[in-house]
Amino acid sequence: MAAAAILPELATQVLIPVAAAVGIAFAVVQWVLVSKVRLTPERHADGGGAAKSGPSDYLIEEEEGLNDHNVVVKCAEIQNAISEGATSFLLTEYKYVGLFMGIFAILIFLFLGSVEGFSTKSQPCHYSKGKTCKPALANAIFSTIAFVLGAVTSLVSGFLGMKIATYANARTTLEARKGVGKAFITAFRSGAVMGFLLAASGLLVLYIAINLFGIYYGDDWEGLFEAITGYGLGGSSMALFGRVGGGIYTKAADVGADLVGKVERNIPEDDPRNPAVIADNVGDNVGDIAGMGSDLFGSYAESSCAALVVASISSFGINHEFTPMVYPLLVSSVGIIACLITTLFATDFFEIKVVNEIEPALKKQLIISTVVMTIGIALISWLGLPYTFTIYNFGAQKTVQSWQLFLCVAVGLWAGLVIGFVTEYYTSNAYSPVQDVADSCRTGAATNVIFGLALGYKSVIIPIFAIAFSIFLSFSLAAMYGVAVAALGMLSTIATGLAIDAYGPISDNAGGIAEMAGMSHRIRERTDALDSAGNTTAAIGKGFAIGSAALVSLALFGAFVSRAAISTVDVLTPKVFIGLIVGAMLPYWFSAMTMKSVGSAALKMVEEVRRQFNTIPGLMEGTTKPDYATCVKISTDASIKEMIPPGALVMLTPLIVGILFGVETLSGVLAGALVSGVQIAISASNTGGAWDNAKKYIEAGASEHARTLGPKGSDPHKAAVIGDTIGDPLKDTSGPSLNILIKLMAVESLVFAPFFAAHGGILFKWL
Amino acid sequence: MAAAAILPELATQVLIPVAAAVGIAFAVVQWVLVSKVRLTPERHADGGGAAKSGPSDYLIEEEEGLNDHNVVVKCAEIQNAISEGATSFLLTEYKYVGLFMGIFAILIFLFLGSVEGFSTKSQPCHYSKGKTCKPALANAIFSTIAFVLGAVTSLVSGFLGMKIATYANARTTLEARKGVGKAFITAFRSGAVMGFLLAASGLLVLYIAINLFGIYYGDDWEGLFEAITGYGLGGSSMALFGRVGGGIYTKAADVGADLVGKVERNIPEDDPRNPAVIADNVGDNVGDIAGMGSDLFGSYAESSCAALVVASISSFGINHEFTPMVYPLLVSSVGIIACLITTLFATDFFEIKVVNEIEPALKKQLIISTVVMTIGIALISWLGLPYTFTIYNFGAQKTVQSWQLFLCVAVGLWAGLVIGFVTEYYTSNAYSPVQDVADSCRTGAATNVIFGLALGYKSVIIPIFAIAFSIFLSFSLAAMYGVAVAALGMLSTIATGLAIDAYGPISDNAGGIAEMAGMSHRIRERTDALDSAGNTTAAIGKGFAIGSAALVSLALFGAFVSRAAISTVDVLTPKVFIGLIVGAMLPYWFSAMTMKSVGSAALKMVEEVRRQFNTIPGLMEGTTKPDYATCVKISTDASIKEMIPPGALVMLTPLIVGILFGVETLSGVLAGALVSGVQIAISASNTGGAWDNAKKYIEAGASEHARTLGPKGSDPHKAAVIGDTIGDPLKDTSGPSLNILIKLMAVESLVFAPFFAAHGGILFKWL
Repeated sequence: MAAAAILPELATQVLIPVAAAVGIAFAVVQWVLVSKVRLTPERHADGGGAAKSGPSDYLIEEEEGLNDHNVVVKCAEIQNAISEGATSFLLTEYKYVGLFMGIFAILIFLFLGSVEGFSTKSQPCHYSKGKTCKPALANAIFSTIAFVLGAVTSLVSGFLGMKIATYANARTTLEARKGVGKAFITAFRSGAVMGFLLAASGLLVLYIAINLFGIYYGDDWEGLFEAITGYGLGGSSMALFGRVGGGIYTKAADVGADLVGKVERNIPEDDPRNPAVIADNVGDNVGDIAGMGSDLFGSYAESSCAALVVASISSFGINHEFTPMVYPLLVSSVGIIACLITTLFATDFFEIKVVNEIEPALKKQLIISTVVMTIGIALISWLGLPYTFTIYNFGAQKTVQSWQLFLCVAVGLWAGLVIGFVTEYYTSNAYSPVQDVADSCRTGAATNVIFGLALGYKSVIIPIFAIAFSIFLSFSLAAMYGVAVAALGMLSTIATGLAIDAYGPISDNAGGIAEMAGMSHRIRERTDALDSAGNTTAAIGKGFAIGSAALVSLALFGAFVSRAAISTVDVLTPKVFIGLIVGAMLPYWFSAMTMKSVGSAALKMVEEVRRQFNTIPGLMEGTTKPDYATCVKISTDASIKEMIPPGALVMLTPLIVGILFGVETLSGVLAGALVSGVQIAISASNTGGAWDNAKKYIEAGASEHARTLGPKGSDPHKAAVIGDTIGDPLKDTSGPSLNILIKLMAVESLVFAPFFAAHGGILFKWL
Repeated sequence: MAAAAILPELATQVLIPVAAAVGIAFAVVQWVLVSKVRLTPERHADGGGAAKSGPSDYLIEEEEGLNDHNVVVKCAEIQNAISEGATSFLLTEYKYVGLFMGIFAILIFLFLGSVEGFSTKSQPCHYSKGKTCKPALANAIFSTIAFVLGAVTSLVSGFLGMKIATYANARTTLEARKGVGKAFITAFRSGAVMGFLLAASGLLVLYIAINLFGIYYGDDWEGLFEAITGYGLGGSSMALFGRVGGGIYTKAADVGADLVGKVERNIPEDDPRNPAVIADNVGDNVGDIAGMGSDLFGSYAESSCAALVVASISSFGINHEFTPMVYPLLVSSVGIIACLITTLFATDFFEIKVVNEIEPALKKQLIISTVVMTIGIALISWLGLPYTFTIYNFGAQKTVQSWQLFLCVAVGLWAGLVIGFVTEYYTSNAYSPVQDVADSCRTGAATNVIFGLALGYKSVIIPIFAIAFSIFLSFSLAAMYGVAVAALGMLSTIATGLAIDAYGPISDNAGGIAEMAGMSHRIRERTDALDSAGNTTAAIGKGFAIGSAALVSLALFGAFVSRAAISTVDVLTPKVFIGLIVGAMLPYWFSAMTMKSVGSAALKMVEEVRRQFNTIPGLMEGTTKPDYATCVKISTDASIKEMIPPGALVMLTPLIVGILFGVETLSGVLAGALVSGVQIAISASNTGGAWDNAKKYIEAGASEHARTLGPKGSDPHKAAVIGDTIGDPLKDTSGPSLNILIKLMAVESLVFAPFFAAHGGILFKWL
């Protein structure tokens, strides 16, 4: 009945890997361009690549000793220290990751294998009537492999992203000597490396896994794509370490450094005399780069898997139509190309000359990528989908048309843009909300906190309406498949999103390095301008991350429900309702843990910093170097230790609820955690962002109003600093970590669904 | 088939009004006892009641001029000012209440009347097959009358409670001269007046309304108890003004007074030179007494109505068994008697002699009332219910036994006690959580805020499990009727709960009056001890209020769903899910509004207080009196104005959602707001309570640890004061106001359910 897609299978089989390869190649090109900035003093490098930037360039923009030997050497040294610190943290983390992944892989195998008692016999399919499917044991084995693949892909991408970031930070500082435009391009290109690498390798590995698994599974697409969900779980488990561990690391270092440095010793941020300053800069890389990357990679892998698992039991899967079956991968492929075009607008088509062009340039990236991608989605929906098809909808099949699916993807994409701009409005100090918060500092820290919390609460309204609208439209048009592709739509411009996002911490680091290397006020003004724009884009990135996490979780939830063979999740049953209310509580429990973790880790850091100031003679005078390494070690150890309780809460809740209370209660828990967590996550990250920028607003003193509040050191400024410090764990640890809570619980439930459906709910069975 | 209840109808018809009358009589006796404390200087009152306390009493405990003419006159003056301020606020508020109630009464009439086009014809019943029920127009008229009755009962009880509180505050101060025990009894008795008056009059008016409405409705119990739900809506609408308006008033005055007085001018709390000091003391009465009273009255009326409306379509209603039909009222009747016995333990059976006996005495009240009430419930469940009966359960009838219903009521009652004790653990400075928060003040206000927020989040865990357990048990045993009676169980000791709760602000006022009247350090130590115990009990009271609000809302939600003729609320439909996520957002929106309201109102107060300090000569020196009345007026006007937006959000949401999106989406909104709101409410009020007591912990310096943080004016103390100020709106405005949000939306939906079911969802119909 349904016509086939225009795009033949062969073309699809070519298009996806090619798009991924193009993405990776583009990342490599960007990396080569960044590496042209030499981090060795010029006089040691007369020939080679350095000559390319030619002396004429220098004449135009030169302001201070470009070849100042000391400055370059210092920058290289600091960069080295940061890079070593970040690598050492990640390697330590990976030891625990390895242990955890190993145990969890075994668990997956055992739980899923036990569904049919480790039988190697084939069984009748659940959804494709009359066909035979592979045994549950095969599902156990391949789910485990997919899990490991997802984790490793995320780990490698995150590690490389962190490497390029710590490679680019000092280069951005050095380029800032030549002008703000050069520095911007260096930072942005480095971000793009991370963005494209992650998007492309995520797509490529998933594509290869589907094809390799397909050799065994053959006709059994139902089993194949069930096993593939392990990929999402792997990516998301890695994100637990990245986001939560990295989040605790970065804020323990930051808060610890600030509490002693800024508050007690009255020395500026990023002062090289502060023993925690390297740890603080390392934190930006492990938290905001590797953590954010793993979070978005997780969302991306999960939304693809959620879409695929629903598609496999829809007409695509049942009729074995390969092109529409891998429509989610096609969307991502087009996304890479769209982002590639978008990137050129920032790096090649236009050039930034003055400071206040930075923020508009970054915002334009968001708009351009969204517009280009909308066309791309329309095209691929027309080429890659049959005009009419059916989608599995909790027990029934729903007829959908290709333009409806286009609408689903597009609404997610545009909702992302709306969330991004609302976030900007509430966190940028160019608008009244942040200015009001800054103004409330007149009457002290208490009113600052009250107004900041109120701002965060208020900033939830429009994003929730945007999410609700996307959900309603995509859910109504194409059930849970629609929600999954809407999430994918929001994430389809992930390469650009991550590029913008990674740009922030790189610029932040660049500023820190400029300060530590003792560069001139002018250079620091430039890096500060880069950093300030980065603050807003970081908030936008967090908005995207939580928005997509909400959609992804719902899609995973829908996939879980389908796989657990529940057809309704009725709030009017006690089993579901208690799940709902306890689920809504979990984000609070989790946030209590992560905030307390930051607090405790920061206190340890404070003690160490104080100890160094008190016991190392000449430290305050700048004649002796502090012991940076000990601070790095404290942050590393504390973050690993402190992430265990919240990690355990996330990983164990679905297991305990599923085994003891069964799938209905677990459905309630997932829905409750989702609808409650998304609110706290948005409000926490916007409150934190607003406090940070309210402080910057007072410090910059760019308006008449701002000058009445300042200068640095005034009472309103002190009140603003208190708000900023409170906001640190909210915006960088507890808020974003909630993405992981809601996504990971959902994907874990999805993977273990067959086990829970078969053996779960023992408490109710026993009663 | 089902045997009748042991208690005959006549006995029930006697028992309920008698219990109510006993409650009212007991309140009057307590009031007479309080009024024996003379507020006129002794030498003007040689004869009469004053002689009773005999000179021998004075000889034992006299410490300073008991008959000091000036002190007594001053106390009377201050009391007068507070009483006048409170009366003036309430009268202003009542003008708006009158207007609002008038408009809303008309709306109720029009909406409900239009269900059958204002037809006066009788119609077939929905649930009692084959019978004829009264026309929808009758329902409209009687619902409107019940609504007005509920509002007026709440208003009168709240007003009288405030009157007795402002009558008792100065008397408590004067009694404190004779010893802490006498002062305690005066404060506690005054609280009891409020508690018993409210519980008994709420019961009596409801009982009379049922009997009077019954004259018209006759056989049509279905219609009768549908109309009675208006009573809950009336009580709850009044609570909107009491809680939200009162909450904004009290914190605007408090924060405003503190920001200028404590922070800028460095004068102590309750210093008579502070122009906002009377407004602050007025605030305790209108917010914590009248507001809290109307909140709990609303819960009480709503849970009774929710239980009655479900009972009316269960076997009790269908078979016209009067005694089991009014089982909810019987439970409340027994509650009054149980609380009466409990009160005697505080005022007559034991006597408090030293300061540290106060808190245990109050806690014992909770335990004794719970234990006595458990026996009472067992008795009335045995006497008032048939052994077996059926309860309406979303379209089906469920068989229940009387002991199961006993369990439902008892689990609610005991869950309340658990919530109370957990709240105490997290907010009393006798335990480690608050001490940890106090300790975090060492590193400044930022860590104090981080640790305080984390504490609040953590304090949600056990109460939610307690609520979830109660819901699960009562829901499983007796569907929504079980949940309603569980809520009623938690509220059955309302008289004791309110007595303890009202005791707090009365003691707080007593301390304020002692300070303002310039009484000795010793007297103030005693009133401080009373107040400190009151802080913890206030937190416990808030725990009860939110716990019962959660159960009540669920019961109302269930009643709404039944009345709107929905049989499932499936999260897996887009209509419901968007309701759920938007509903979960509403508490954030609402909190943003109420917090901002307090902030804005407080800023107005700050300006006025500053103006007075700057323009009135001799104010700081204490030679001129400040202009208290202007501050009272500012608080009054600001609170009325500022409560409009949050009030509109609560009142309009169900109407807009119901009319545009229909009952399914509205169900989602109610469930979402409930599960999300309860968490914020608990965490906000516990965070605020913990900060308050962390500050008091440092100030009191009662332990080695506390002394290392103090004394008053030290850096950690300053940090603690900032936390305390932030906590003020959280614990007294935005947190408790959420009770109203979740309850009022639910009861409003319930009342309008027939209209929404008939005419709602026009947007979806149109699409």
